[in-house]
Amino acid sequence: MFLLLSATSAHRSYKKLDEYLENDDIESFRHELLRLHQYNQMKWFEQLQNPSLRKNVYKALSAREFAAIFQKLKLKDQVDKVQELEDTYQADVFSAMSTNRLADLFNRLPEHVIHQSIDQMDAEQARTVMQLMKHEEGTAGALMTTEFVSLNKDLTIEQAIEKLRAFADLAETIYYVYVENDQHQLVGVVSLRHLLAGESTKTLEEIMKEEVIQVVQDKDQEDIAKLTKDYDLIAIPVVDDDRHLLGIIMVDEIMDVVEEEATEDLGEFAASRGALGIEISALLAAKKRAPWIMGLLLIGMVTAQIISFFENTLQEVVMLSAFIPLVMGAAGNTGTQTLAVIVRSISNDEVKKGVWKIILRELSAGFMIGICSAAVLLIVIPIFYNGNWPLAFIVGGSVFLALGFATFIGCVIPIIINKLNIDQAVASGPFITTLNDMVSIVIYFLIATSFLQYLQ
Amino acid sequence: MFLLLSATSAHRSYKKLDEYLENDDIESFRHELLRLHQYNQMKWFEQLQNPSLRKNVYKALSAREFAAIFQKLKLKDQVDKVQELEDTYQADVFSAMSTNRLADLFNRLPEHVIHQSIDQMDAEQARTVMQLMKHEEGTAGALMTTEFVSLNKDLTIEQAIEKLRAFADLAETIYYVYVENDQHQLVGVVSLRHLLAGESTKTLEEIMKEEVIQVVQDKDQEDIAKLTKDYDLIAIPVVDDDRHLLGIIMVDEIMDVVEEEATEDLGEFAASRGALGIEISALLAAKKRAPWIMGLLLIGMVTAQIISFFENTLQEVVMLSAFIPLVMGAAGNTGTQTLAVIVRSISNDEVKKGVWKIILRELSAGFMIGICSAAVLLIVIPIFYNGNWPLAFIVGGSVFLALGFATFIGCVIPIIINKLNIDQAVASGPFITTLNDMVSIVIYFLIATSFLQYLQ
Repeated sequence: MFLLLSATSAHRSYKKLDEYLENDDIESFRHELLRLHQYNQMKWFEQLQNPSLRKNVYKALSAREFAAIFQKLKLKDQVDKVQELEDTYQADVFSAMSTNRLADLFNRLPEHVIHQSIDQMDAEQARTVMQLMKHEEGTAGALMTTEFVSLNKDLTIEQAIEKLRAFADLAETIYYVYVENDQHQLVGVVSLRHLLAGESTKTLEEIMKEEVIQVVQDKDQEDIAKLTKDYDLIAIPVVDDDRHLLGIIMVDEIMDVVEEEATEDLGEFAASRGALGIEISALLAAKKRAPWIMGLLLIGMVTAQIISFFENTLQEVVMLSAFIPLVMGAAGNTGTQTLAVIVRSISNDEVKKGVWKIILRELSAGFMIGICSAAVLLIVIPIFYNGNWPLAFIVGGSVFLALGFATFIGCVIPIIINKLNIDQAVASGPFITTLNDMVSIVIYFLIATSFLQYLQ
Repeated sequence: MFLLLSATSAHRSYKKLDEYLENDDIESFRHELLRLHQYNQMKWFEQLQNPSLRKNVYKALSAREFAAIFQKLKLKDQVDKVQELEDTYQADVFSAMSTNRLADLFNRLPEHVIHQSIDQMDAEQARTVMQLMKHEEGTAGALMTTEFVSLNKDLTIEQAIEKLRAFADLAETIYYVYVENDQHQLVGVVSLRHLLAGESTKTLEEIMKEEVIQVVQDKDQEDIAKLTKDYDLIAIPVVDDDRHLLGIIMVDEIMDVVEEEATEDLGEFAASRGALGIEISALLAAKKRAPWIMGLLLIGMVTAQIISFFENTLQEVVMLSAFIPLVMGAAGNTGTQTLAVIVRSISNDEVKKGVWKIILRELSAGFMIGICSAAVLLIVIPIFYNGNWPLAFIVGGSVFLALGFATFIGCVIPIIINKLNIDQAVASGPFITTLNDMVSIVIYFLIATSFLQYLQ
């Protein structure tokens, strides 16, 4: 099958699969399903609504074949479907799953299901899964899989290739062979390509690279993603404090991490931390987002108080209130631009290259944008407001100053917060916008009050 | 060398390298440098400020060794350093570079340098590079490398492994073997692990997977990233319209794409499209960002006009102006939350799973957040403003309605814009915020004007 038009040809297969299954034509069903890529197998299974048809799938597939589909499902779907599996089939599916997927699933299943399954599992596998379950989410330990290949340094290339052939089906990757010493410590790595290119009588120790890019089990996933990207790795080994190899993290796991971290950045930016996914319910989304909005409302009350403080000025020239949103908006938007630059550079680690350079660049940019903005206002306001030049100067000057402060706030506060290792969420967009609101309002009314006589 | 503390141990190496180079101890220098990972070699070279020391590096390394470092440098740095290389050394470095890196570089070099280099290059390689240079940035053709392995379907596994051993050093990856028919069309793929696990007398055609996830040369990079993630690929083949294999895209290129696309999302979100990088100058950043700010200022003038329209209402109760920022801010922040959800789900393609479900969820969430926010205001405003219940009801009611509209705007507009295939940037955060500003101001003043009699 040619997958250039993957969507349509896959959908054609899905239709056939539905038909075969409904007509109980198990042989055609198996033939059609198993030639599909596992991702497409999962996609088809995912949309299967009828529980009795799903039962037919379990009957048609071996536990191993179904495990390959099952472990690609979203965790939520896995939890739902687990109950549909008969006890022995369930145990066999679990045994055929990769240990880290199984650990993730177990972390979401009730105690008694886990205990029952563990009892039926191979003791070694059960032990590994229990170990994996202990790792905190977002660390190397939670991302790693234990299906890796490690060989003793004294094996020859020929022996190593022989072993690899045997492992090829079981391991997550055989493209890196990790080399251990007699104490089972990680001492080197040989890529499969170098293994194949090497003379067959040499030992692994002779051809291995001693510089192994590796991480300890509690390493944060963001750092792991950066290492993988920088060093162009397909997999990264995870070790304990004594350099014993515990597992490997595959690049496809890391792609998901990169995606996840980007979503997190945006979420913090938009005061929607943990609420960006569309799969969560409206109630849960509201629960996560409402506190931000309500908190910001309370801060907005402070802004209201500040404006009330200038009630006399407003009483004299009520038109001044028309420009409150404009001044605040300009400051807010500029602060957001700067914040986006800083958030991104913190998350890229670019910020380490030179904090002062970034601050200086942002302030210069803010200064230039301020001048342009003030110029625009000096032209536009007299046109719309019958040649009211004093008003144009008050608003234009306020915007210029407010932009300067906004750039400074949007730039310096997240950097300070990052330095202090306080949770980045505190520095999220709306917080800085609100701070900018207050500062710009004060600037505006101070200037307006000072030059009030020219307005009347 | 043990890289658990990679940063410090790498820095120790960098220091040694600097010393050896200054003392002209070429042998120690080569030994120390070549045992480092290529990324670290590049990192060290990148920070080498002294041009005469760099000359020593070119002398100490073969063109091939230096090419490996050189092609990992940022393009800007490559362009800078190219001029320092002597003509024949330069030509040899170019020849040793991977074709797609060379094409990227050539796209940034002056015509005469390219022509001179092309003349000295292997004709086949020159042709390939010229071909690659034609592809538009952001497409499969621009990302792919031509160093792949493709073999005829009739080869046996044993013959294939033999060929691979010869290729191992040259190809970008040997982990996938692409299988061609006699017309050189892509008909299948065999992973190296299946090759190793298979019986040596079988042909490639017998063991290959016919379902090859592949892309045509003008495919957009965002789609490629999604395919790679979904199908957990290490490389994805690029074909022309006749299914001839043109190249492959490696997963490390795709990781960069994912990063880039995430930055783009955030940039559009913050009205800083293309201006998020910290390496661009303040002037360039200002140039890219100022038009947004100035454009939004002009829209802000419209808001000012709207408020001026309600001057009579304000004249009667000047205190109303104190809550303009609060009402606008609540609407703006809620709109931003919704927008973040939608932008992310458009970019994840999750939006295709059900637009109405997302809209409904967002509106429900907005409704709940609106009720909570109104409740907060009904409690807080009477406390701060001497039991002014009418004011509390006017502000609370306005916030409730404004939040509803803000959710709707933040949700529906980007979806419509996406459907119409208009550039997503138009739907960026500040645009929607500004729209929300106007709507919420109108709501607020309409309510305030209607209930003005209760305020006095």
